[in-house]
Amino acid sequence: MPRPSLREEVVAAALDQFHLRGYNGSGVKDVTDAAGLPKGSFYNYFSSKEEMALETLRRYGIGREFERLQDRTLPPLARLRAHFVFLGQDVVRLGVIRGCMIGNFASEVATQSPALREAVAAGFTGWINKVTEVLREAVQRGELSPERDLELLASSLVHAWEGTLLHAKVTGDMRTVDEFFPGVFDPLTGYSDPVS
Amino acid sequence: MPRPSLREEVVAAALDQFHLRGYNGSGVKDVTDAAGLPKGSFYNYFSSKEEMALETLRRYGIGREFERLQDRTLPPLARLRAHFVFLGQDVVRLGVIRGCMIGNFASEVATQSPALREAVAAGFTGWINKVTEVLREAVQRGELSPERDLELLASSLVHAWEGTLLHAKVTGDMRTVDEFFPGVFDPLTGYSDPVS
Repeated sequence: MPRPSLREEVVAAALDQFHLRGYNGSGVKDVTDAAGLPKGSFYNYFSSKEEMALETLRRYGIGREFERLQDRTLPPLARLRAHFVFLGQDVVRLGVIRGCMIGNFASEVATQSPALREAVAAGFTGWINKVTEVLREAVQRGELSPERDLELLASSLVHAWEGTLLHAKVTGDMRTVDEFFPGVFDPLTGYSDPVS
Repeated sequence: MPRPSLREEVVAAALDQFHLRGYNGSGVKDVTDAAGLPKGSFYNYFSSKEEMALETLRRYGIGREFERLQDRTLPPLARLRAHFVFLGQDVVRLGVIRGCMIGNFASEVATQSPALREAVAAGFTGWINKVTEVLREAVQRGELSPERDLELLASSLVHAWEGTLLHAKVTGDMRTVDEFFPGVFDPLTGYSDPVS
């Protein structure tokens, strides 16, 4: 029976490879080589590259710490902004050239794998729903007008974030990431720093 | 000597393949098959897949009709909005699942080909500069406050557009594309439809 710890090594290597080189740019052998395993052992853990990619997408989502969006110790808009600040620090730490793996997969797999496309679409929907929830709290707290279309605002923020990271991949410059806050987040939400 | 008309067929096939399947998802043989040519003939026209991709990026840019941004028969903000409306109709016509080829390449090639990465980065910069020019006219015409950071506004619009198309690739829904206008363009520029 395959050792669970080795499956974890395969998943970690796959996450690293897919995030760096994309779905089509990473082969099963690249992953097993990176995990220090023979290629043939791959099928002890996954039935296909596609199944492995589905697992890495799930892990990538966990690593983005969406639970921060429910941290009620911060007021809603400040908490939402901190979520994007965290994602920005995270991508700078991992290398802006890697971008967002959800966005990278959206770009590559839409025309190729219905299962991956569906997983990426669900990733977008889940994220937009979580952002919408925080915006709903912001309305309740009087931080946003009740007239606002919250789902539209949430998807607009997510779209702008994804496009920002796409551009940052080719500039390789964290300043491209930083543009999101004064360029999109603050004007669309009306957020302003609390006077300290 | 190779016939120029056949080179055009290779370029058209490459543009179609790269836009649909991405850089890593399209092989030289896919392109020559689609052009109805033997694989070996490819090297009569291009020295490498990378060189062919650079040419398709150039052609893709031409097809987006950026000269519309200089059409002075429309006031600046209406003209800029019409530019994005045109790009939206264009992607719906070609299939939202294809997305924007510049964005797709940004996602895929940043970590792989310095030449392609540079071409994609130049594509972003050129586009943002053209948008900034129109915004400058908008300030001169009193459509925008002279206090606005026009380069930041231009890059924010382009980022949001690219992220919108990335999401639309996985929803496959043109309504995702349409969200850009009420969600981003109109609130960021303060555009409102002229009363007719």
